[in-house]
Amino acid sequence: MQFLLTISYDGTDYAGWQRQDNAVAVQEKVEDALGSIIGRPVSLRAASRTDAGVHALGQRASFFAPDLRVPTDKLPQVLNGLLPVDISVVAAAEVPPNFNPRFDAKQKTYIYNVQNSPHANPLLSRYAAHVPQELDFSAMQNAVKHFVGAHDFAAFCATGSNAKTTVREIFACEVIGGDASDAWASSPSFGGRPSLFAPILGAGSSSRNFGIRVVGSGFLYNMVRIIAGTVLYVGMGKISAEDIAGIIASKDRARAGKTMPPQGLVLVEVVY
Amino acid sequence: MQFLLTISYDGTDYAGWQRQDNAVAVQEKVEDALGSIIGRPVSLRAASRTDAGVHALGQRASFFAPDLRVPTDKLPQVLNGLLPVDISVVAAAEVPPNFNPRFDAKQKTYIYNVQNSPHANPLLSRYAAHVPQELDFSAMQNAVKHFVGAHDFAAFCATGSNAKTTVREIFACEVIGGDASDAWASSPSFGGRPSLFAPILGAGSSSRNFGIRVVGSGFLYNMVRIIAGTVLYVGMGKISAEDIAGIIASKDRARAGKTMPPQGLVLVEVVY
Repeated sequence: MQFLLTISYDGTDYAGWQRQDNAVAVQEKVEDALGSIIGRPVSLRAASRTDAGVHALGQRASFFAPDLRVPTDKLPQVLNGLLPVDISVVAAAEVPPNFNPRFDAKQKTYIYNVQNSPHANPLLSRYAAHVPQELDFSAMQNAVKHFVGAHDFAAFCATGSNAKTTVREIFACEVIGGDASDAWASSPSFGGRPSLFAPILGAGSSSRNFGIRVVGSGFLYNMVRIIAGTVLYVGMGKISAEDIAGIIASKDRARAGKTMPPQGLVLVEVVY
Repeated sequence: MQFLLTISYDGTDYAGWQRQDNAVAVQEKVEDALGSIIGRPVSLRAASRTDAGVHALGQRASFFAPDLRVPTDKLPQVLNGLLPVDISVVAAAEVPPNFNPRFDAKQKTYIYNVQNSPHANPLLSRYAAHVPQELDFSAMQNAVKHFVGAHDFAAFCATGSNAKTTVREIFACEVIGGDASDAWASSPSFGGRPSLFAPILGAGSSSRNFGIRVVGSGFLYNMVRIIAGTVLYVGMGKISAEDIAGIIASKDRARAGKTMPPQGLVLVEVVY
Protein backbone atom coordinates (compact mmCIF):
# COMPACT_ATOMS: atom_id res chain seq x y z
CA MET A 1 0.00 0.00 0.00
CA GLN A 2 1.16 3.53 -0.77
CA PHE A 3 0.52 6.51 1.52
CA LEU A 4 0.71 10.22 0.71
CA LEU A 5 1.69 12.73 3.40
CA THR A 6 1.05 16.49 3.35
CA ILE A 7 3.95 18.14 5.17
CA SER A 8 4.61 21.69 6.46
CA TYR A 9 8.07 22.80 7.44
CA ASP A 10 10.15 25.78 8.38
CA GLY A 11 13.16 25.33 6.10
CA THR A 12 15.45 27.67 8.07
CA ASP A 13 17.50 24.98 9.80
CA TYR A 14 17.53 22.39 7.00
CA ALA A 15 19.67 21.74 3.93
CA GLY A 16 16.45 21.52 1.90
CA TRP A 17 14.05 18.63 1.35
CA GLN A 18 16.40 16.07 -0.14
CA ARG A 19 18.40 13.72 2.10
CA GLN A 20 22.16 14.27 1.88
CA ASP A 21 25.35 13.04 3.48
CA ASN A 22 26.79 15.98 5.38
CA ALA A 23 23.77 18.04 6.38
CA VAL A 24 20.35 17.48 7.92
CA ALA A 25 17.47 17.51 5.42
CA VAL A 26 13.70 17.47 5.99
CA GLN A 27 13.38 14.13 4.14
CA GLU A 28 15.73 12.46 6.63
CA LYS A 29 13.72 13.68 9.63
CA VAL A 30 10.41 12.42 8.21
CA GLU A 31 11.91 9.13 7.02
CA ASP A 32 13.43 8.55 10.45
CA ALA A 33 10.09 9.18 12.16
CA LEU A 34 8.32 6.82 9.72
CA GLY A 35 11.08 4.24 10.15
CA SER A 36 10.64 4.15 13.91
CA ILE A 37 6.90 3.54 13.50
CA ILE A 38 7.25 0.89 10.81
CA GLY A 39 10.37 -0.75 12.22
CA ARG A 40 12.45 -0.68 9.05
CA PRO A 41 13.98 2.02 6.80
CA VAL A 42 11.41 3.93 4.72
CA SER A 43 12.02 5.96 1.53
CA LEU A 44 9.95 9.03 0.70
CA ARG A 45 9.33 10.40 -2.82
CA ALA A 46 8.41 14.10 -2.73
CA ALA A 47 6.44 16.35 -5.07
CA SER A 48 9.17 18.97 -5.01
CA ARG A 49 12.81 19.10 -3.91
CA THR A 50 12.80 22.39 -2.05
CA ASP A 51 16.18 24.08 -1.58
CA ALA A 52 17.93 24.90 1.68
CA GLY A 53 16.01 27.64 3.55
CA VAL A 54 12.83 27.24 1.45
CA HIS A 55 9.63 26.62 3.45
CA ALA A 56 6.59 24.46 2.77
CA LEU A 57 2.99 24.59 3.87
CA GLY A 58 1.79 21.79 1.61
CA GLN A 59 4.74 19.65 0.46
CA ARG A 60 3.64 16.12 -0.50
CA ALA A 61 5.62 12.90 -0.13
CA SER A 62 4.66 9.26 -0.47
CA PHE A 63 5.99 5.93 0.81
CA PHE A 64 5.16 2.24 0.51
CA ALA A 65 4.28 0.22 3.58
CA PRO A 66 2.50 -3.13 3.41
CA ASP A 67 2.75 -3.43 7.17
CA LEU A 68 1.55 -0.05 8.51
CA ARG A 69 -0.26 -0.76 11.78
CA VAL A 70 -1.12 2.87 12.61
CA PRO A 71 -4.53 3.88 11.14
CA THR A 72 -4.02 6.39 8.31
CA ASP A 73 -6.00 9.15 10.06
CA LYS A 74 -3.84 8.80 13.19
CA LEU A 75 -0.56 8.94 11.25
CA PRO A 76 -0.10 12.76 11.40
CA GLN A 77 -0.48 12.84 15.16
CA VAL A 78 1.84 9.88 15.73
CA LEU A 79 4.50 11.27 13.37
CA ASN A 80 4.27 14.76 14.88
CA GLY A 81 5.03 13.24 18.27
CA LEU A 82 8.38 12.09 16.81
CA LEU A 83 9.16 15.14 14.63
CA PRO A 84 10.83 18.40 15.71
CA VAL A 85 8.54 21.46 16.01
CA ASP A 86 9.72 22.89 12.69
CA ILE A 87 8.29 19.94 10.71
CA SER A 88 4.63 18.91 10.86
CA VAL A 89 2.62 16.27 9.00
CA VAL A 90 -0.79 17.84 8.44
CA ALA A 91 -2.54 15.02 6.56
CA ALA A 92 -2.13 11.41 5.43
CA ALA A 93 -4.09 9.42 2.83
CA GLU A 94 -3.85 6.09 1.05
CA VAL A 95 -3.10 6.39 -2.69
CA PRO A 96 -2.98 3.81 -5.53
CA PRO A 97 0.29 1.84 -5.99
CA ASN A 98 1.00 3.52 -9.34
CA PHE A 99 0.62 7.05 -7.93
CA ASN A 100 3.71 9.23 -8.30
CA PRO A 101 3.79 12.36 -6.10
CA ARG A 102 6.10 14.21 -8.49
CA PHE A 103 4.86 13.26 -11.95
CA ASP A 104 1.15 13.13 -11.09
CA ALA A 105 1.13 16.71 -9.79
CA LYS A 106 -1.29 18.78 -11.91
CA GLN A 107 -0.66 22.13 -10.28
CA LYS A 108 1.74 23.68 -7.78
CA THR A 109 1.43 26.99 -5.94
CA TYR A 110 4.36 28.97 -4.57
CA ILE A 111 4.41 32.33 -2.80
CA TYR A 112 7.53 34.48 -2.76
CA ASN A 113 7.35 36.82 0.27
CA VAL A 114 8.94 40.27 0.29
CA GLN A 115 9.17 42.79 3.11
CA ASN A 116 9.42 46.24 1.63
CA SER A 117 10.50 48.73 4.30
CA PRO A 118 13.52 50.95 5.02
CA HIS A 119 14.60 48.70 7.92
CA ALA A 120 14.14 44.92 7.86
CA ASN A 121 11.79 43.54 10.49
CA PRO A 122 13.79 40.77 12.23
CA LEU A 123 10.63 38.75 12.83
CA LEU A 124 10.26 38.36 9.06
CA SER A 125 13.92 37.75 8.25
CA ARG A 126 13.53 33.96 8.06
CA TYR A 127 10.41 34.16 5.85
CA ALA A 128 10.77 37.05 3.44
CA ALA A 129 13.39 38.82 1.36
CA HIS A 130 14.01 42.41 2.44
CA VAL A 131 13.82 45.11 -0.24
CA PRO A 132 14.50 48.58 1.22
CA GLN A 133 13.88 50.78 -1.84
CA GLU A 134 10.44 52.09 -2.84
CA LEU A 135 8.63 49.86 -5.34
CA ASP A 136 6.10 50.71 -8.04
CA PHE A 137 3.25 48.33 -7.18
CA SER A 138 1.15 49.21 -10.17
CA ALA A 139 4.06 48.38 -12.50
CA MET A 140 4.55 45.04 -10.71
CA GLN A 141 0.80 44.28 -11.03
CA ASN A 142 1.22 44.77 -14.79
CA ALA A 143 4.42 42.73 -14.95
CA VAL A 144 3.05 39.54 -13.38
CA LYS A 145 0.34 39.17 -16.07
CA HIS A 146 2.99 38.54 -18.73
CA PHE A 147 4.05 35.25 -17.11
CA VAL A 148 0.61 33.64 -17.45
CA GLY A 149 0.27 31.02 -20.19
CA ALA A 150 2.42 28.27 -21.72
CA HIS A 151 5.88 29.64 -22.45
CA ASP A 152 9.43 28.45 -22.89
CA PHE A 153 10.88 29.65 -19.58
CA ALA A 154 14.55 28.98 -20.41
CA ALA A 155 15.36 32.57 -19.39
CA PHE A 156 13.93 31.79 -15.93
CA CYS A 157 15.88 28.62 -15.22
CA ALA A 158 19.13 28.30 -13.27
CA THR A 159 22.00 27.23 -15.52
CA GLY A 160 23.05 23.60 -15.17
CA SER A 161 19.46 22.34 -15.02
CA ASN A 162 18.89 19.18 -17.05
CA ALA A 163 15.13 19.49 -17.60
CA LYS A 164 13.98 17.76 -20.81
CA THR A 165 11.92 20.74 -21.85
CA THR A 166 11.88 24.30 -20.53
CA VAL A 167 8.23 24.85 -21.53
CA ARG A 168 5.93 25.29 -18.54
CA GLU A 169 2.37 26.58 -18.15
CA ILE A 170 1.63 29.29 -15.59
CA PHE A 171 -2.05 29.39 -14.60
CA ALA A 172 -1.88 32.47 -12.36
CA CYS A 173 0.71 35.01 -11.31
CA GLU A 174 -0.22 37.86 -9.00
CA VAL A 175 1.05 40.32 -6.43
CA ILE A 176 -0.90 39.77 -3.20
CA GLY A 177 -0.97 42.23 -0.31
CA GLY A 178 1.15 45.34 -0.19
CA ASP A 179 -1.79 47.64 0.29
CA ALA A 180 -4.10 48.85 3.04
CA SER A 181 -6.79 46.33 2.16
CA ASP A 182 -4.48 43.58 3.37
CA ALA A 183 -5.21 41.13 0.56
CA TRP A 184 -2.19 39.11 1.65
CA ALA A 185 -3.89 38.14 4.88
CA SER A 186 -7.32 37.41 3.48
CA SER A 187 -6.68 35.93 0.03
CA PRO A 188 -8.45 32.56 -0.14
CA SER A 189 -6.64 29.33 -1.10
CA PHE A 190 -5.38 26.13 0.56
CA GLY A 191 -7.53 26.08 3.64
CA GLY A 192 -8.62 29.67 3.29
CA ARG A 193 -5.45 31.55 4.18
CA PRO A 194 -2.33 31.10 2.13
CA SER A 195 -0.39 34.05 3.40
CA LEU A 196 2.41 33.67 5.86
CA PHE A 197 2.21 37.02 7.49
CA ALA A 198 -0.06 39.98 7.57
CA PRO A 199 1.73 43.16 6.75
CA ILE A 200 3.18 44.30 10.03
CA LEU A 201 5.11 47.25 11.27
CA GLY A 202 8.86 47.37 11.30
CA ALA A 203 9.59 50.88 10.32
CA GLY A 204 6.21 52.51 10.69
CA SER A 205 3.64 53.08 8.04
CA SER A 206 6.14 52.97 5.18
CA SER A 207 6.34 49.18 5.60
CA ARG A 208 4.61 47.22 2.83
CA ASN A 209 4.85 43.47 2.81
CA PHE A 210 3.60 41.40 -0.06
CA GLY A 211 3.83 38.09 -1.83
CA ILE A 212 4.25 37.08 -5.45
CA ARG A 213 1.95 34.11 -5.90
CA VAL A 214 2.64 31.80 -8.83
CA VAL A 215 0.45 28.84 -9.81
CA GLY A 216 1.65 26.53 -12.55
CA SER A 217 1.77 23.04 -14.01
CA GLY A 218 5.36 22.71 -12.83
CA PHE A 219 8.47 24.80 -12.38
CA LEU A 220 12.07 24.79 -13.58
CA TYR A 221 14.94 24.97 -11.11
CA ASN A 222 14.88 28.39 -9.33
CA MET A 223 12.07 29.54 -11.67
CA VAL A 224 9.88 31.17 -8.99
CA ARG A 225 12.87 32.90 -7.39
CA ILE A 226 13.95 34.29 -10.80
CA ILE A 227 10.37 35.38 -11.64
CA ALA A 228 10.28 37.17 -8.26
CA GLY A 229 13.61 38.85 -8.98
CA THR A 230 12.34 39.98 -12.40
CA VAL A 231 9.06 41.35 -10.99
CA LEU A 232 11.11 43.26 -8.40
CA TYR A 233 13.31 44.71 -11.17
CA VAL A 234 10.10 46.12 -12.65
CA GLY A 235 9.11 47.49 -9.24
CA MET A 236 12.52 49.17 -8.94
CA GLY A 237 12.25 50.65 -12.44
CA LYS A 238 15.29 48.74 -13.76
CA ILE A 239 13.11 47.23 -16.51
CA SER A 240 9.50 47.85 -17.54
CA ALA A 241 6.52 45.47 -17.42
CA GLU A 242 6.44 45.50 -21.23
CA ASP A 243 9.98 44.04 -21.30
CA ILE A 244 8.83 40.73 -19.78
CA ALA A 245 7.51 39.21 -23.04
CA GLY A 246 10.81 39.97 -24.76
CA ILE A 247 12.82 38.47 -21.90
CA ILE A 248 10.76 35.27 -22.08
CA ALA A 249 11.16 35.13 -25.91
CA SER A 250 14.95 35.68 -25.63
CA LYS A 251 15.39 32.44 -23.60
CA ASP A 252 18.42 34.29 -22.19
CA ARG A 253 18.92 33.85 -18.42
CA ALA A 254 21.11 36.96 -18.35
CA ARG A 255 18.17 39.19 -19.33
CA ALA A 256 15.88 38.12 -16.45
CA GLY A 257 16.17 39.44 -12.88
CA LYS A 258 18.38 38.01 -10.18
CA THR A 259 17.59 34.82 -8.30
CA MET A 260 15.99 35.93 -5.02
CA PRO A 261 17.23 34.31 -1.78
CA PRO A 262 15.57 31.07 -0.60
CA GLN A 263 13.99 32.24 2.68
CA GLY A 264 11.23 34.18 0.87
CA LEU A 265 9.94 31.09 -0.93
CA VAL A 266 7.09 28.89 0.30
CA LEU A 267 5.70 25.81 -1.46
CA VAL A 268 2.03 26.42 -0.62
CA GLU A 269 0.14 23.62 -2.33
CA VAL A 270 0.38 20.67 -4.72
CA VAL A 271 -2.80 19.58 -6.53
CA TYR A 272 -3.26 16.10 -8.09
CA MET B 1 24.30 63.22 25.53
CA GLN B 2 21.90 60.30 25.94
CA PHE B 3 20.35 58.45 22.98
CA LEU B 4 17.32 56.16 22.93
CA LEU B 5 17.08 53.29 20.45
CA THR B 6 13.92 51.44 19.39
CA ILE B 7 14.92 47.83 18.68
CA SER B 8 13.14 44.86 17.05
CA TYR B 9 14.47 41.34 17.44
CA ASP B 10 13.67 37.72 16.88
CA GLY B 11 14.52 36.23 20.28
CA THR B 12 14.76 32.62 19.02
CA ASP B 13 18.53 32.39 18.99
CA TYR B 14 19.28 34.59 22.02
CA ALA B 15 19.49 34.03 25.76
CA GLY B 16 17.17 37.04 26.19
CA TRP B 17 17.91 40.76 26.27
CA GLN B 18 20.35 40.90 29.16
CA ARG B 19 24.07 40.38 28.60
CA GLN B 20 25.43 37.25 30.30
CA ASP B 21 28.64 35.28 30.56
CA ASN B 22 27.97 31.95 28.86
CA ALA B 23 25.36 32.74 26.21
CA VAL B 24 24.77 35.33 23.53
CA ALA B 25 22.22 38.01 24.46
CA VAL B 26 20.63 40.74 22.34
CA GLN B 27 22.17 43.46 24.55
CA GLU B 28 25.68 42.19 23.76
CA LYS B 29 25.06 42.31 20.00
CA VAL B 30 23.74 45.90 20.09
CA GLU B 31 26.44 47.07 22.52
CA ASP B 32 29.13 45.55 20.30
CA ALA B 33 27.72 47.31 17.23
CA LEU B 34 27.57 50.64 19.12
CA GLY B 35 31.07 50.08 20.51
CA SER B 36 32.56 49.64 17.08
CA ILE B 37 30.97 52.94 15.93
CA ILE B 38 31.97 54.91 19.03
CA GLY B 39 35.36 53.28 19.50
CA ARG B 40 34.98 52.34 23.18
CA PRO B 41 32.71 49.97 25.20
CA VAL B 42 29.08 51.18 25.47
CA SER B 43 26.48 50.13 28.07
CA LEU B 44 22.78 49.95 27.22
CA ARG B 45 19.91 50.32 29.71
CA ALA B 46 16.72 48.70 28.43
CA ALA B 47 13.03 49.28 29.10
CA SER B 48 12.45 45.56 29.65
CA ARG B 49 14.65 42.51 30.25
CA THR B 50 12.97 40.09 27.87
CA ASP B 51 13.59 36.38 28.56
CA ALA B 52 15.27 33.85 26.26
CA GLY B 53 13.08 33.19 23.21
CA VAL B 54 10.88 36.28 23.75
CA HIS B 55 10.63 38.66 20.77
CA ALA B 56 10.44 42.43 20.53
CA LEU B 57 9.04 44.82 17.97
CA GLY B 58 9.56 47.95 20.06
CA GLN B 59 12.12 47.33 22.81
CA ARG B 60 13.81 50.55 23.95
CA ALA B 61 17.36 50.97 25.20
CA SER B 62 19.48 54.04 25.89
CA PHE B 63 23.17 54.84 26.10
CA PHE B 64 25.40 57.84 26.83
CA ALA B 65 27.83 59.09 24.21
CA PRO B 66 29.38 62.55 24.36
CA ASP B 67 31.37 61.75 21.25
CA LEU B 68 28.83 60.28 18.79
CA ARG B 69 29.88 61.36 15.31
CA VAL B 70 27.10 59.59 13.38
CA PRO B 71 24.00 61.84 12.95
CA THR B 72 21.14 60.50 15.11
CA ASP B 73 18.85 59.89 12.12
CA LYS B 74 21.56 57.81 10.39
CA LEU B 75 22.23 55.68 13.47
CA PRO B 76 19.65 52.91 12.69
CA GLN B 77 21.05 52.34 9.20
CA VAL B 78 24.67 52.33 10.38
CA LEU B 79 23.93 49.96 13.28
CA ASN B 80 21.85 47.62 11.08
CA GLY B 81 24.84 47.28 8.80
CA LEU B 82 26.73 45.79 11.76
CA LEU B 83 23.89 43.76 13.34
CA PRO B 84 22.72 40.24 12.40
CA VAL B 85 19.42 39.98 10.46
CA ASP B 86 17.50 38.93 13.57
CA ILE B 87 18.15 42.27 15.32
CA SER B 88 17.16 45.63 13.83
CA VAL B 89 17.33 49.18 15.17
CA VAL B 90 14.21 50.89 13.84
CA ALA B 91 14.63 54.36 15.36
CA ALA B 92 17.04 56.54 17.33
CA ALA B 93 16.43 59.81 19.19
CA GLU B 94 18.28 62.09 21.59
CA VAL B 95 16.80 62.15 25.11
CA PRO B 96 17.57 64.28 28.21
CA PRO B 97 20.47 63.15 30.48
CA ASN B 98 18.11 62.27 33.34
CA PHE B 99 15.87 60.05 31.15
CA ASN B 100 15.62 56.44 32.34
CA PRO B 101 14.25 53.97 29.74
CA ARG B 102 12.97 51.59 32.41
CA PHE B 103 11.57 53.85 35.13
CA ASP B 104 10.21 56.55 32.82
CA ALA B 105 8.07 54.04 30.85
CA LYS B 106 4.41 55.04 31.21
CA GLN B 107 2.90 52.13 29.30
CA LYS B 108 4.02 48.82 27.83
CA THR B 109 2.19 46.60 25.35
CA TYR B 110 2.75 42.87 24.98
CA ILE B 111 1.03 40.36 22.71
CA TYR B 112 0.99 36.67 23.54
CA ASN B 113 0.46 34.69 20.31
CA VAL B 114 -1.34 31.35 20.19
CA GLN B 115 -1.88 29.00 17.28
CA ASN B 116 -4.99 26.97 17.93
CA SER B 117 -5.17 24.04 15.50
CA PRO B 118 -5.00 20.23 15.72
CA HIS B 119 -1.51 20.19 14.18
CA ALA B 120 1.06 22.89 14.85
CA ASN B 121 2.09 24.95 11.84
CA PRO B 122 5.92 24.81 11.82
CA LEU B 123 6.11 28.30 10.35
CA LEU B 124 4.57 29.65 13.55
CA SER B 125 6.50 27.45 15.99
CA ARG B 126 9.06 30.14 16.82
CA TYR B 127 6.42 32.84 17.34
CA ALA B 128 3.38 31.29 18.96
CA ALA B 129 2.43 28.67 21.53
CA HIS B 130 0.51 25.73 20.07
CA VAL B 131 -2.78 24.77 21.71
CA PRO B 132 -4.41 21.78 19.96
CA GLN B 133 -7.70 21.55 21.88
CA GLU B 134 -10.82 23.53 20.97
CA LEU B 135 -11.14 26.82 22.85
CA ASP B 136 -14.21 28.77 23.93
CA PHE B 137 -13.46 32.21 22.47
CA SER B 138 -16.48 33.89 23.98
CA ALA B 139 -15.43 32.71 27.46
CA MET B 140 -11.89 34.04 26.85
CA GLN B 141 -13.32 37.39 25.67
CA ASN B 142 -15.13 37.59 29.02
CA ALA B 143 -12.06 36.48 30.99
CA VAL B 144 -9.67 39.17 29.75
CA LYS B 145 -11.91 42.01 31.00
CA HIS B 146 -11.30 40.98 34.62
CA PHE B 147 -7.59 41.88 34.39
CA VAL B 148 -8.23 45.55 33.56
CA GLY B 149 -7.65 48.03 36.40
CA ALA B 150 -5.19 48.45 39.26
CA HIS B 151 -4.81 45.14 41.10
CA ASP B 152 -2.34 43.31 43.29
CA PHE B 153 -1.10 40.77 40.76
CA ALA B 154 0.87 38.59 43.24
CA ALA B 155 -0.97 35.52 41.88
CA PHE B 156 0.41 36.36 38.41
CA CYS B 157 4.07 36.71 39.35
CA ALA B 158 6.77 34.05 39.12
CA THR B 159 8.01 33.06 42.57
CA GLY B 160 11.41 34.43 43.55
CA SER B 161 10.63 37.89 42.13
CA ASN B 162 11.83 40.71 44.38
CA ALA B 163 9.50 43.47 43.15
CA LYS B 164 8.84 46.10 45.85
CA THR B 165 5.11 46.02 45.19
CA THR B 166 3.00 43.54 43.23
CA VAL B 167 0.34 46.16 42.40
CA ARG B 168 0.18 46.98 38.69
CA GLU B 169 -2.36 48.77 36.51
CA ILE B 170 -3.66 47.09 33.36
CA PHE B 171 -5.11 49.59 30.87
CA ALA B 172 -6.36 47.07 28.31
CA CYS B 173 -6.52 43.31 27.94
CA GLU B 174 -8.13 41.73 24.88
CA VAL B 175 -8.21 38.69 22.63
CA ILE B 176 -7.37 39.81 19.10
CA GLY B 177 -7.96 37.70 16.00
CA GLY B 178 -9.20 34.13 16.13
CA ASP B 179 -12.19 34.82 13.94
CA ALA B 180 -13.03 35.25 10.28
CA SER B 181 -12.82 39.03 10.47
CA ASP B 182 -9.09 38.68 11.05
CA ALA B 183 -8.78 41.34 13.74
CA TRP B 184 -5.30 40.07 14.51
CA ALA B 185 -4.05 41.26 11.17
CA SER B 186 -5.83 44.59 11.10
CA SER B 187 -5.88 45.74 14.76
CA PRO B 188 -4.36 49.21 14.91
CA SER B 189 -1.42 50.02 17.25
CA PHE B 190 2.31 50.76 17.02
CA GLY B 191 2.55 51.86 13.44
CA GLY B 192 -0.79 50.44 12.48
CA ARG B 193 -0.21 46.70 12.60
CA PRO B 194 0.83 45.02 15.81
CA SER B 195 0.12 41.46 14.84
CA LEU B 196 2.87 39.08 13.91
CA PHE B 197 0.94 36.81 11.65
CA ALA B 198 -2.38 36.63 9.96
CA PRO B 199 -4.24 33.49 10.78
CA ILE B 200 -2.94 30.95 8.31
CA LEU B 201 -3.65 27.38 7.49
CA GLY B 202 -1.95 24.50 9.20
CA ALA B 203 -4.69 21.97 9.44
CA GLY B 204 -7.38 23.49 7.26
CA SER B 205 -10.25 25.67 8.35
CA SER B 206 -10.14 24.49 11.96
CA SER B 207 -7.01 26.60 12.49
CA ARG B 208 -7.60 29.72 14.58
CA ASN B 209 -4.68 31.87 15.52
CA PHE B 210 -5.00 34.72 17.96
CA GLY B 211 -3.16 36.99 20.31
CA ILE B 212 -3.78 38.08 23.89
CA ARG B 213 -2.88 41.76 23.95
CA VAL B 214 -2.07 43.31 27.33
CA VAL B 215 -1.38 47.02 27.88
CA GLY B 216 -0.24 48.14 31.32
CA SER B 217 1.80 50.54 33.43
CA GLY B 218 4.33 47.80 34.01
CA PHE B 219 4.50 44.06 34.52
CA LEU B 220 5.78 41.60 37.12
CA TYR B 221 8.15 38.81 36.16
CA ASN B 222 6.34 36.34 33.82
CA MET B 223 3.07 38.24 34.39
CA VAL B 224 1.92 38.31 30.75
CA ARG B 225 2.78 34.63 30.25
CA ILE B 226 0.79 33.69 33.40
CA ILE B 227 -2.17 35.88 32.33
CA ALA B 228 -2.07 34.10 28.95
CA GLY B 229 -2.01 30.69 30.65
CA THR B 230 -4.97 31.69 32.83
CA VAL B 231 -7.01 33.00 29.87
CA LEU B 232 -6.30 29.71 28.07
CA TYR B 233 -7.51 27.74 31.13
CA VAL B 234 -10.80 29.62 30.71
CA GLY B 235 -10.82 28.76 26.99
CA MET B 236 -10.29 25.09 27.83
CA GLY B 237 -13.05 25.12 30.45
CA LYS B 238 -10.68 24.32 33.34
CA ILE B 239 -11.83 27.48 35.14
CA SER B 240 -14.54 30.04 34.33
CA ALA B 241 -14.17 33.74 33.46
CA GLU B 242 -15.89 34.59 36.74
CA ASP B 243 -13.07 32.84 38.66
CA ILE B 244 -10.50 35.46 37.59
CA ALA B 245 -11.45 38.09 40.19
CA GLY B 246 -11.12 35.50 42.97
CA ILE B 247 -7.74 34.30 41.66
CA ILE B 248 -6.45 37.90 41.65
CA ALA B 249 -7.82 38.49 45.18
CA SER B 250 -6.23 35.26 46.47
CA LYS B 251 -2.69 36.49 45.61
CA ASP B 252 -1.95 32.76 45.28
CA ARG B 253 0.27 31.83 42.31
CA ALA B 254 -0.95 28.22 42.50
CA ARG B 255 -4.51 29.27 41.60
CA ALA B 256 -3.59 31.04 38.33
CA GLY B 257 -2.89 29.23 35.03
CA LYS B 258 0.47 27.91 33.95
CA THR B 259 3.30 30.08 32.66
CA MET B 260 3.10 29.89 28.86
CA PRO B 261 6.35 29.27 26.93
CA PRO B 262 8.48 32.29 25.89
CA GLN B 263 8.24 32.04 22.10
CA GLY B 264 4.62 33.29 22.04
CA LEU B 265 5.52 36.58 23.74
CA VAL B 266 6.29 39.83 21.92
CA LEU B 267 7.14 43.17 23.52
CA VAL B 268 5.23 45.36 21.08
CA GLU B 269 5.64 48.90 22.38
CA VAL B 270 6.93 51.06 25.23
CA VAL B 271 5.39 54.53 25.67
CA TYR B 272 7.08 57.36 27.61
